[in-house]
Amino acid sequence: MQRTTPHRRAVILGAGGFIGINLAHALAKDGCELICFDRFQCHYWPTNVKAIVGDFSQLPEELLAVLDDAAVYHLVSSCRPHQHTETAADEVVADVSSTLRYLEYTRHKNIRWVFVSSGGTVYGPNASCPTTEDAQTNPICSYGLIKLALEKYFALYKKLHETDFVVARVSNPYGPWQDPSSGQGVIAALVYKALAVQAVEIWGDGENVRDYVYIDDAVRGLMDLAKHGESGEIYNVSSGVGTTINDLIQVIRHTLGIQLNTNCVAARIFDVRKSVLSSNKLQSLTGWSPNTCLGDGVKATADWLSKKW
Amino acid sequence: MQRTTPHRRAVILGAGGFIGINLAHALAKDGCELICFDRFQCHYWPTNVKAIVGDFSQLPEELLAVLDDAAVYHLVSSCRPHQHTETAADEVVADVSSTLRYLEYTRHKNIRWVFVSSGGTVYGPNASCPTTEDAQTNPICSYGLIKLALEKYFALYKKLHETDFVVARVSNPYGPWQDPSSGQGVIAALVYKALAVQAVEIWGDGENVRDYVYIDDAVRGLMDLAKHGESGEIYNVSSGVGTTINDLIQVIRHTLGIQLNTNCVAARIFDVRKSVLSSNKLQSLTGWSPNTCLGDGVKATADWLSKKW
Repeated sequence: MQRTTPHRRAVILGAGGFIGINLAHALAKDGCELICFDRFQCHYWPTNVKAIVGDFSQLPEELLAVLDDAAVYHLVSSCRPHQHTETAADEVVADVSSTLRYLEYTRHKNIRWVFVSSGGTVYGPNASCPTTEDAQTNPICSYGLIKLALEKYFALYKKLHETDFVVARVSNPYGPWQDPSSGQGVIAALVYKALAVQAVEIWGDGENVRDYVYIDDAVRGLMDLAKHGESGEIYNVSSGVGTTINDLIQVIRHTLGIQLNTNCVAARIFDVRKSVLSSNKLQSLTGWSPNTCLGDGVKATADWLSKKW
Repeated sequence: MQRTTPHRRAVILGAGGFIGINLAHALAKDGCELICFDRFQCHYWPTNVKAIVGDFSQLPEELLAVLDDAAVYHLVSSCRPHQHTETAADEVVADVSSTLRYLEYTRHKNIRWVFVSSGGTVYGPNASCPTTEDAQTNPICSYGLIKLALEKYFALYKKLHETDFVVARVSNPYGPWQDPSSGQGVIAALVYKALAVQAVEIWGDGENVRDYVYIDDAVRGLMDLAKHGESGEIYNVSSGVGTTINDLIQVIRHTLGIQLNTNCVAARIFDVRKSVLSSNKLQSLTGWSPNTCLGDGVKATADWLSKKW
């Protein structure tokens, strides 16, 4: 469904994270009313936004009040990809149940949801590459399972209540504002270590393949989907290019002219061997394409880390 | 994984429901230590079982104490297939989160889980029939979504912690001890109305196709899977035969010699048009087959309803 009149406002749920901050800056340039929501005030948010700070699971009144006539980007997650399960039950409550309460509350509101899912984890280990959106989904971490469950609940809400949504399965985004110490975002971590002349740990043999998409491209994809995405559809937002960790290290060495010392440590069981996603569906719909090559993206990431971190 | 030594005990979680009661009677004949758990004491349970009554979500100590060296049949569900979403957030907490707490607690216990999933809802509306276990899964009700999420969490626990489980996707079971007024179980409802000479409501045109499997066959399938199911695998437990509601009404009329008056009411949006499941995988593994034809099953259901209800 292509909307003829845009929504009055854009709301980012989880605006204090890496994708959220970048998205906030891109949306701020668009001139619409922008609301940034997260647990904490974020000093990286643009100055001309309305900030709402609160606990997502508590459905703050101030947040509920703006959830109408809006494109709502859902980036909230209480967890990250990891291989433990001790917190899975709590994650399900914090993420799945909480989101369902918002979906229920906003059933009769004029909202387009853009649910940001995890292209890197929802497909699981056995998908053929480049993976298309109709592939089987067998996540091997709780993070991916929660994203997948929510995708399916959005579809249920559309079926039962005509809730308007698109799912964006973003592959491995990287770039400015990615925290190099978060444990998520290998490029930020590697570039940071390279700049600090520290050795980096490589899980397994360094031949795991990932699809790195530069954050500006990813954010542009999300905004395209908010405007033009077919209601109820799932779109990969990805570079379509597979890069091994070993390749990535070479790109960093070459681009930054810095030696990078590596230590190999045991592979992680929840890492899939290869993840490369086709973004043909998004490209066909909107003409979107990933414009930033890995070398340029690594350079921009290094520039940002040098100045800000 | 075929076990060489059977577990010392069998535990039924959700033993007070239709499948649970029948399973309890079948297991009681097997001679192993049998524990029946549910929210309420059930007077239909066999006399020689240990009964534990409590709130599943509270992880009662008495229940935790028996979750070792056991085949654990997981039939607990806080919800049923329905087309509303008001309670979905709570259902996710009650069923998904609670089960994850048990999985976490029993990680190092010697348990084979038999997770009873919903063959009638996990595949969704677009599966080709007879549906095999590797088909896409797109449930259109919260009940099916929760079953699917739990299947995938069991797989995650196997991957990360070697949790031993099988999934049984039971189609539409019917027979004695099915509550004709529960809103689940069309055969019990129709037979009950026929015996009471009441008109029955048919949703839509009566041409929705279902796969009815007699409860004794279904229970035998579950017990076969506990003993011989390949660890981590999913098995349909089904008749493989598609029957429309209109056909079913003819079978009831013919078998019971009773006229059945019908009123057509609007179709339900969460009902899939056709659901017929292949049980070839289970049949190949254990030689299991559905022995009871629809006429005989309807007769047995009517006999039980006449005597007990």
